Amino acid sequence: MPTRILLNCDMGESFGSWRMGLDEQVMPLVDMANIACGFHASDPVTMTKTVMLAKHAGTRIGAHPSYPDLVGFGRRSMQCHPQEVVSMIQYQVGALAGIAKAHGKTLEYVKPHGALYNDMMKNHDILRAVLEGVCEYDESLPLMLMATANNTAAQSVADEFDARLLFEAFADRAYDNHGYLVPRSVEGSVYHEEARIIEQSLRLAQEGVVVTLDGAEIPLQADTLCVHGDNAESVKAVQSIRSALDSYYASL
Amino acid sequence: MPTRILLNCDMGESFGSWRMGLDEQVMPLVDMANIACGFHASDPVTMTKTVMLAKHAGTRIGAHPSYPDLVGFGRRSMQCHPQEVVSMIQYQVGALAGIAKAHGKTLEYVKPHGALYNDMMKNHDILRAVLEGVCEYDESLPLMLMATANNTAAQSVADEFDARLLFEAFADRAYDNHGYLVPRSVEGSVYHEEARIIEQSLRLAQEGVVVTLDGAEIPLQADTLCVHGDNAESVKAVQSIRSALDSYYASL
Amino acid sequence: MPTRILLNCDMGESFGSWRMGLDEQVMPLVDMANIACGFHASDPVTMTKTVMLAKHAGTRIGAHPSYPDLVGFGRRSMQCHPQEVVSMIQYQVGALAGIAKAHGKTLEYVKPHGALYNDMMKNHDILRAVLEGVCEYDESLPLMLMATANNTAAQSVADEFDARLLFEAFADRAYDNHGYLVPRSVEGSVYHEEARIIEQSLRLAQEGVVVTLDGAEIPLQADTLCVHGDNAESVKAVQSIRSALDSYYASL
Amino acid sequence: MPTRILLNCDMGESFGSWRMGLDEQVMPLVDMANIACGFHASDPVTMTKTVMLAKHAGTRIGAHPSYPDLVGFGRRSMQCHPQEVVSMIQYQVGALAGIAKAHGKTLEYVKPHGALYNDMMKNHDILRAVLEGVCEYDESLPLMLMATANNTAAQSVADEFDARLLFEAFADRAYDNHGYLVPRSVEGSVYHEEARIIEQSLRLAQEGVVVTLDGAEIPLQADTLCVHGDNAESVKAVQSIRSALDSYYASL
Repeated sequence: MPTRILLNCDMGESFGSWRMGLDEQVMPLVDMANIACGFHASDPVTMTKTVMLAKHAGTRIGAHPSYPDLVGFGRRSMQCHPQEVVSMIQYQVGALAGIAKAHGKTLEYVKPHGALYNDMMKNHDILRAVLEGVCEYDESLPLMLMATANNTAAQSVADEFDARLLFEAFADRAYDNHGYLVPRSVEGSVYHEEARIIEQSLRLAQEGVVVTLDGAEIPLQADTLCVHGDNAESVKAVQSIRSALDSYYASL
Repeated sequence: MPTRILLNCDMGESFGSWRMGLDEQVMPLVDMANIACGFHASDPVTMTKTVMLAKHAGTRIGAHPSYPDLVGFGRRSMQCHPQEVVSMIQYQVGALAGIAKAHGKTLEYVKPHGALYNDMMKNHDILRAVLEGVCEYDESLPLMLMATANNTAAQSVADEFDARLLFEAFADRAYDNHGYLVPRSVEGSVYHEEARIIEQSLRLAQEGVVVTLDGAEIPLQADTLCVHGDNAESVKAVQSIRSALDSYYASL
Repeated sequence: MPTRILLNCDMGESFGSWRMGLDEQVMPLVDMANIACGFHASDPVTMTKTVMLAKHAGTRIGAHPSYPDLVGFGRRSMQCHPQEVVSMIQYQVGALAGIAKAHGKTLEYVKPHGALYNDMMKNHDILRAVLEGVCEYDESLPLMLMATANNTAAQSVADEFDARLLFEAFADRAYDNHGYLVPRSVEGSVYHEEARIIEQSLRLAQEGVVVTLDGAEIPLQADTLCVHGDNAESVKAVQSIRSALDSYYASL
Repeated sequence: MPTRILLNCDMGESFGSWRMGLDEQVMPLVDMANIACGFHASDPVTMTKTVMLAKHAGTRIGAHPSYPDLVGFGRRSMQCHPQEVVSMIQYQVGALAGIAKAHGKTLEYVKPHGALYNDMMKNHDILRAVLEGVCEYDESLPLMLMATANNTAAQSVADEFDARLLFEAFADRAYDNHGYLVPRSVEGSVYHEEARIIEQSLRLAQEGVVVTLDGAEIPLQADTLCVHGDNAESVKAVQSIRSALDSYYASL
């Protein structure tokens, strides 16, 4: 029996009176909820509600820490000292773990958000700071990052820390021939056609391959697919991916 | 052998580039460091430094959560919903616990800060929210609050949650006949004379009594004395209290 | 010719990536846009967009300052020192005036938000601090506050500062016999029936009277009606009020 | 008569309960106070006090806007969109102008802070956004930036906006042969010897030249010298520079 590919989704990204994401609808459809920790989104009450929603749905939870930038939603790169990154990871992971503990849930992974995620993928010093933050806190807690055609580069940095990694792929994004996402600014980089999204999900799950924007077939080993609950259309896409994957695994 | 009265001090109240408190000097003199959690003061790097300082000195650590009000240093009362208080306690306690865990330290108590502390002492709904926040997180974690002539009022609320309490008294503040602090606005409410401070400390430690501003002698059962490390003068006072208490306990 | 009653609406209450309010739809329907200034909602880019929207629609703009409480949306009362209120008013009014000046618009009034508004109506010390903040900045800038059956109480405080006032009433809220709003917690305190809302608007505009929840008819002198652009339903109500008032004034 | 070189100093960098800078001592010694606007430091009450201090001393005031980063004191570069820079400049300039207006003072220039200042000097897109922010607000308001051996590069960008510039030099920092500051990480980059600081100040004032770390003499046209009021030592240096410049100008 192969390991099932899991669905993960960013959640708990409301802030105070402002709503974002259809968390109630998408929570039962996914396996892993990446919960914002108050630095790019969320607040203690929102985090509490999101943890309770995950508990009710039986969804695993992970911390989704960010640079401290609410107004920029954590999407603006900030030149932080590595020690700042280490400490901000531990603060946010701990904050969510505290709320989770109060409700009988346990964090199962950490997935950085936005600019911190991108910086970590581009800069091994940032990746090391993130890994140090996670592993000092709990060496058994996996870090989720982006699958590429060459996962060994990230894995070799993680090995310095004896860290566990989870690799995620994207069902609705075009890949280039190195297994990197084609930037959103490029025509055709985001898939909207359901058949295309389902096909990419299934080939990742079944074969660990993806067809690039150029038409090449490349290996892409992923533990999980990132999906989105922003609006009704994206929730519908998650339902379709969920059904397609469930049917496939039931057929094995 | 009686239980020793412990010294507790607010610490980690710097913020980013701004310094506050002589933490390096006062940390070795006290038994318990109440560490700010980022809502009225502190930030992830400051919390990390403070935890490491406490670890080096062998000082116990506790969380010092607050209303979210950096610019007001948590001293302005905010009309929060009880659920907001519950969640903000768990967020802050968890954040500090996360940083502490990364450095091999464990939180041993929770002491609310400033306006939240005052509101909790005046309003049982706020006290219940604080207790719910602490006990949902960890029922064995004591809450520190202010000793008065009648500790049973607070204890009976705590009993609703099976919560443990720690009562603190003040060495340098005048008390009224109900065991409440005389407001700072009143002449004579803050003691500056060392002999007076030492005497109040010793009588609290030895007899569990305090002499009020009116000259009455009332019972005041305290587990710990709150001291301050704001400046050289207050550090000197802490040294004197430390010496006086150490001498007393050595003489038993 | 009587002075026309104007429609005012809170706007620019998005924050970073979070949207709130149908500003584009409601802006052309109202006379006065109360623009959030970054303390309970909004940010520099959102303020810029809102000012440009108002400029395009020819809508007057006013500052909508608040206690500093983004996560609580300025709805939680904070015990601020009067000097803090004075300075926070001037900071926020100035910030919006700066963005407005850059786009050729001028502030025409100030309307405090949420808890600051409520506190100002209940506590003359807060009202004085607000008035001092506004009048030190510009004595000719009117302060908008709530019309009651007895506007002279507020006016006499304003007279200490030679301040100008604008009184606002609510089209969709039930009044008590003193001209105060019936709390939202009371059954029937918020009107949803369009005919009822239009009738209250017209009587305020035509006669300066309102029918209270008890059925009494009381005087309520208002310069402006507060309307809401939160959702499609409330925008529809604004359109109806706008039409009813326009027809009435055209008939004169 | 030559134009006198002026002394400018960053001020109002306290935040809430945290103190920074000896503003009371340094204010009477300098010509221009660069006042923080709440994004890297300061708050409405601190800004008010600083404006009043400047008014009392007869010191000119300018806005000292920053990226929104209190915990990082505005020293961490943030990848902001140019429109974000334009709006954040206008918000902060307006906020300080509002408080200044309330106390009868007028802003006379804008000097960006920290990472925003450095980014503006390195990246003409950021410089254009800053200039657009300032000039849309008030075309006559000069922007202060760093003098180098080639001020025409910055001036030619400013000319696109018909903007006025003020160039500042540093009395206590070593320069390289292109008129850029030698990084603080380099040995000898910061001067501590008073004679050296005075000599650099006088040659900048008298001849518009500076001796570089390599010993070369290069032109450096500056309108103002940046001085610091962080501590007693730096205030003493400001007094010495003030005296030396006053003596020189009195001798003309």
